[in-house]
Amino acid sequence: MSDWVPQDLNFEARVRASYAKQRVMDTIGARLGRVVPGLVEIEMGYLPDLGQQHGFIHAGVITTIVDSACGYAAFTLMPAETAVLTVEYKVNFLAPAAGDRFLARGRVLKPGQTLTVCAGEVFAYTADTEKLIATMIATIMNVRGRSGLVD
Amino acid sequence: MSDWVPQDLNFEARVRASYAKQRVMDTIGARLGRVVPGLVEIEMGYLPDLGQQHGFIHAGVITTIVDSACGYAAFTLMPAETAVLTVEYKVNFLAPAAGDRFLARGRVLKPGQTLTVCAGEVFAYTADTEKLIATMIATIMNVRGRSGLVD
Amino acid sequence: MSDWVPQDLNFEARVRASYAKQRVMDTIGARLGRVVPGLVEIEMGYLPDLGQQHGFIHAGVITTIVDSACGYAAFTLMPAETAVLTVEYKVNFLAPAAGDRFLARGRVLKPGQTLTVCAGEVFAYTADTEKLIATMIATIMNVRGRSGLVD
Amino acid sequence: MSDWVPQDLNFEARVRASYAKQRVMDTIGARLGRVVPGLVEIEMGYLPDLGQQHGFIHAGVITTIVDSACGYAAFTLMPAETAVLTVEYKVNFLAPAAGDRFLARGRVLKPGQTLTVCAGEVFAYTADTEKLIATMIATIMNVRGRSGLVD
Repeated sequence: MSDWVPQDLNFEARVRASYAKQRVMDTIGARLGRVVPGLVEIEMGYLPDLGQQHGFIHAGVITTIVDSACGYAAFTLMPAETAVLTVEYKVNFLAPAAGDRFLARGRVLKPGQTLTVCAGEVFAYTADTEKLIATMIATIMNVRGRSGLVD
Repeated sequence: MSDWVPQDLNFEARVRASYAKQRVMDTIGARLGRVVPGLVEIEMGYLPDLGQQHGFIHAGVITTIVDSACGYAAFTLMPAETAVLTVEYKVNFLAPAAGDRFLARGRVLKPGQTLTVCAGEVFAYTADTEKLIATMIATIMNVRGRSGLVD
Repeated sequence: MSDWVPQDLNFEARVRASYAKQRVMDTIGARLGRVVPGLVEIEMGYLPDLGQQHGFIHAGVITTIVDSACGYAAFTLMPAETAVLTVEYKVNFLAPAAGDRFLARGRVLKPGQTLTVCAGEVFAYTADTEKLIATMIATIMNVRGRSGLVD
Repeated sequence: MSDWVPQDLNFEARVRASYAKQRVMDTIGARLGRVVPGLVEIEMGYLPDLGQQHGFIHAGVITTIVDSACGYAAFTLMPAETAVLTVEYKVNFLAPAAGDRFLARGRVLKPGQTLTVCAGEVFAYTADTEKLIATMIATIMNVRGRSGLVD
């Protein structure tokens, strides 16, 4: 995981600048955590306003943080002047999103010139427990010069 | 699609009551639309507060509405006294979530005693265009009497 | 489905020539059927030598025919001088692969310059029944000039 | 991975007996390797008769071995008198299946009474290289007393 070598040494600043533009992250109260080559973490607390019918955090919100964690993990290894795009993902939900705090971690499994495959995990925390609640596999695309998109 | 026969004739009221408890739907400005046997629709407008870095609606938010549409589509065919749970899903993103309005449609592909497979689609609209932007396949579980969960 | 316009009018010959090189298709007794723009079908009979532990055709063999059907469906819309590569797929199994004959149909959902998204279905037949047994979503990549791969 | 405790101490014999009935494994020249709680490995050599159009092993054959590895990994943790069924899987292909020998490893991520989630990996080997070529996430179902299916 720590073996990845970034093509652009400025990768962390690029990730943080792009993340800052994701207004949904403010809306759901998420914060960008670790940004290292091939790995990005995003955290959020429990907010009742993000609940599904039983009061757990909605699966789509959990997906939101782990998708961005995977996308930015891929982005850490991309050259400058590119944009990152989620092609597809699959998420398995292993337990309800119950807890005080949630951490999504995205990791690059295989970087590529065009496509990068990432694995994501989401953990739920209470004061004294940690539980893996979701796992993602995502295909992320590296887009250059399309419609002026630059992250 | 219209061939499905509900086991509980009260299915629409159950879906609407459960949906009303999904507080995240208020947060993202989504509204429940059609609820017929094996098919449910959820709509939302464009909100800048749900944007990713380019201003499109975040993939996770699009996933949120189509996940609920698929889950409730499965729920229309389940017996009363059950809860519905998303086991896993895959989403392919076919175009950026650009538009004034978004419609997620969930349909049952194959109902089952324990598992129901659903297909979801999300369309983006402007004043004069309609575009398919995402497609989901979801596995939904019918849970009875677990932890007192009833939808 | 029939709206797709091929970029290379020679698409059917290219598909049939490439398919003929897939030696696994002989091994499992599969035959290429319809090849039209954006849609390809592959059929096979029931062979005990392809069974899993209960005598049904193994899920991986069913996947083999629907993967090739999806890949070649994508290929019908690609320019000449390209190779086709499966990036990823998801398969849901709706019923055991029991029957005398199986038909896999791959269809293009969204073609693209680099990536094409396809949907696949597999039907099982007996003398008087037809049953949908599996559904696939696949991401197919259009590769040009890599390692001399041309289909 | 090694923390899983089997419910039936006879798990290895059950897996080997069920595997022996998968006739497709003989057809593709696959052999069952390690069988420990929550982890199963299946190996195969390179056979030209399993090739796709460029001579690599077909993605569906790679899927066949990793599906069985995942299914049997789940099966190691199930009670006796059950049958194992693949509900769905997703496979990402990271590199062409080129090599002399292939090893599929299935691991349980999360066991459950009804559903078990497994992760699979396939490695390709030559005399002096090892390469991860595919990764699977699979949902496996534990079936009791349905249609007399027992593995």
